[in-house]
Amino acid sequence: MQTSAVAGPLAGLIVVDLTRVLAGPFCTMLLADLGARVIKVEPPGTGDDSRAFGPFVNGKSAYFMSINRGKESIALDLKAPGDRTVFESLLARADVLIENYRGGTMEKLGYGWDMLHGRFPALVYAACSGFGHTGPLATRAAYDMVVQAMGGVMSHTGHPRYPPTRVGVPIGDLAAGLFTAIGINAALVERAATGQGRKIDIGMLDAQVALMENAIARFAATGEVPGLSEGRHPSITPFAAFRTADHPIVISAGNDALFRALADVLGGTAWPDDPRFRTNADRTANHAALTRAIESILVTEDSAHWLARLDSAGIPCGPINDTGMLLAEPQVTARNMIVTADDPVAGPVRMAGNPIKLSGVPDPQTRAAAPDLDQHRAAILADLAEGSSWKR
Amino acid sequence: MQTSAVAGPLAGLIVVDLTRVLAGPFCTMLLADLGARVIKVEPPGTGDDSRAFGPFVNGKSAYFMSINRGKESIALDLKAPGDRTVFESLLARADVLIENYRGGTMEKLGYGWDMLHGRFPALVYAACSGFGHTGPLATRAAYDMVVQAMGGVMSHTGHPRYPPTRVGVPIGDLAAGLFTAIGINAALVERAATGQGRKIDIGMLDAQVALMENAIARFAATGEVPGLSEGRHPSITPFAAFRTADHPIVISAGNDALFRALADVLGGTAWPDDPRFRTNADRTANHAALTRAIESILVTEDSAHWLARLDSAGIPCGPINDTGMLLAEPQVTARNMIVTADDPVAGPVRMAGNPIKLSGVPDPQTRAAAPDLDQHRAAILADLAEGSSWKR
Repeated sequence: MQTSAVAGPLAGLIVVDLTRVLAGPFCTMLLADLGARVIKVEPPGTGDDSRAFGPFVNGKSAYFMSINRGKESIALDLKAPGDRTVFESLLARADVLIENYRGGTMEKLGYGWDMLHGRFPALVYAACSGFGHTGPLATRAAYDMVVQAMGGVMSHTGHPRYPPTRVGVPIGDLAAGLFTAIGINAALVERAATGQGRKIDIGMLDAQVALMENAIARFAATGEVPGLSEGRHPSITPFAAFRTADHPIVISAGNDALFRALADVLGGTAWPDDPRFRTNADRTANHAALTRAIESILVTEDSAHWLARLDSAGIPCGPINDTGMLLAEPQVTARNMIVTADDPVAGPVRMAGNPIKLSGVPDPQTRAAAPDLDQHRAAILADLAEGSSWKR
Repeated sequence: MQTSAVAGPLAGLIVVDLTRVLAGPFCTMLLADLGARVIKVEPPGTGDDSRAFGPFVNGKSAYFMSINRGKESIALDLKAPGDRTVFESLLARADVLIENYRGGTMEKLGYGWDMLHGRFPALVYAACSGFGHTGPLATRAAYDMVVQAMGGVMSHTGHPRYPPTRVGVPIGDLAAGLFTAIGINAALVERAATGQGRKIDIGMLDAQVALMENAIARFAATGEVPGLSEGRHPSITPFAAFRTADHPIVISAGNDALFRALADVLGGTAWPDDPRFRTNADRTANHAALTRAIESILVTEDSAHWLARLDSAGIPCGPINDTGMLLAEPQVTARNMIVTADDPVAGPVRMAGNPIKLSGVPDPQTRAAAPDLDQHRAAILADLAEGSSWKR
């Protein structure tokens, strides 16, 4: 019995999931959304740490519910012999094992790669740790903000008058989860031909470095260390965030024709002939003066007014949506990017949908809820007892 | 002849790559790093727009070189009958076709999904566009900053005294590229069993929404719109960026024991008994006063001094590396996260490595350079003339 399976390209695959909190669970949520059966193996008593993270809805963590939809749960103590037997029976049926402990933990549990690959040669094993399983920091734990800092992303983000800012979403965790999902799927592609699994060793810090691709190449080419991002493009002007009478918006008028069109919309007809604003180079050199001129007009009307007028004039623009506005953005709802999981205790819980839209694969608006701790024990044990008929 | 193939789980697969600039090329660089043969099909004359993006090294774009390593190039005009024949011969051998045009462009070229799937049923087709192929904005172009703004990420990033800040790496493009790579690989897993390809429809805006997972769940649970990120954790204190005598650092002392250890290191022995700082809730309420107290001591020594002392005391911390410091970070070099491509004209070019480390798969320090426009025409046409023996 597959209690939570959905249609998708990974249907029929079984993922045994030891991950907690964010990077790993974000990865296995993607795998579940793509059709895999994800069996979350949690410590008895407390379960995934994030079950205790607020805010709560009728006592259930919104954080936990939002990144564990569509998974099953069984509580196992990996230090207790009886539970280890169950865990190993699961591994014998599994296609993928994933964990996000710090380096060295799986070896201490007796489940290092050599043992796993020897006993379960077709198993794909993904380790998603703070710093990867090699190097001087291999056994150290990491936090999202620490890898954002060490990986360079923070040094580019913020305003020059303040210390660097962290990215407003936990990109240290999320990027690691995304690279882990790519590695797992690529290993499954290869396994379809060879029958052999591989170990995938992802470090959160490495994932941040990979996002710095172009900044590294730029530095290597010029020796220049990029500055802080602010709310504007560093070399195209105007391409920036601007205030209006209500919410800020982004306007991109990156060439002379678009700048003239913008000047027309805003009534700044003298701007294109102002020596400070004639070319993109002039505008970039005098961006502060241009921003003041543009904002002095934008603040007289609200964002909806200006976005409509800019759109009509063919000038790329968009609202800076806050989270509440995002849920009402027509393109977001048209793409089914806000879905609902019906939790028996918390009720309907809204959360981000699956951005991987596939032809011929349903993209349901309602998703299976996140599991209670140990909720699927009986079903999973019954499946194990059925033996080899479990897997297609 | 595979001129640029590397070992990896996708070895033997052929990716026909129509993408330009960033989101798509970032995705196909990952596929090339995993062993796929990526054939970049570029417009004659100019090629990928990003070939013209500075800075340049001996006339070659550092931007282009850094995200196109290990690919091949052929110049084809998809509106010219002869070139269309070559393109369709490539599709007949390809496993994956990827493009990042705005919605509707492939249909205008006569290469919409119905045609592709009808003629090449095993072909996996990935479209990575600004807003996805459905919804009111389906045919609109997007920019990184616009989707960062519309998708909510910008609204969480920055300092309260300024308009929202964009993320210092182009996360609007990069996240879309990552989700595209996951979708492609998952479709290839399924195809190994079914023989049938699928269309993958990724929108840059959708990808931003997916990164907002927890913010959306939090808003849905509480109605609260999260504020700007600044350089600190919103509910754990001290967990923030702090100035030192030279570079800023991140310190995470998120519980009372760690806070006492921090106070000992900094000589602030009265802090744990100060009513403003006794509990995490007190410290969070008085974070500005605590930051002033901590920074008044940190600025007396440099970051290396404090990181060593904090490490010895077991307090999680890390440098806020800028791009230059990143290239010297021991964990980054130990993980081979800075690799070199030897370009015949530009010389050795340093760039970010591949964060997907796989057991038994080489992770070379030197990579094949990015191609010149049309560089591999003769080799590709020769392979096509060889017929079905080309693919293993």
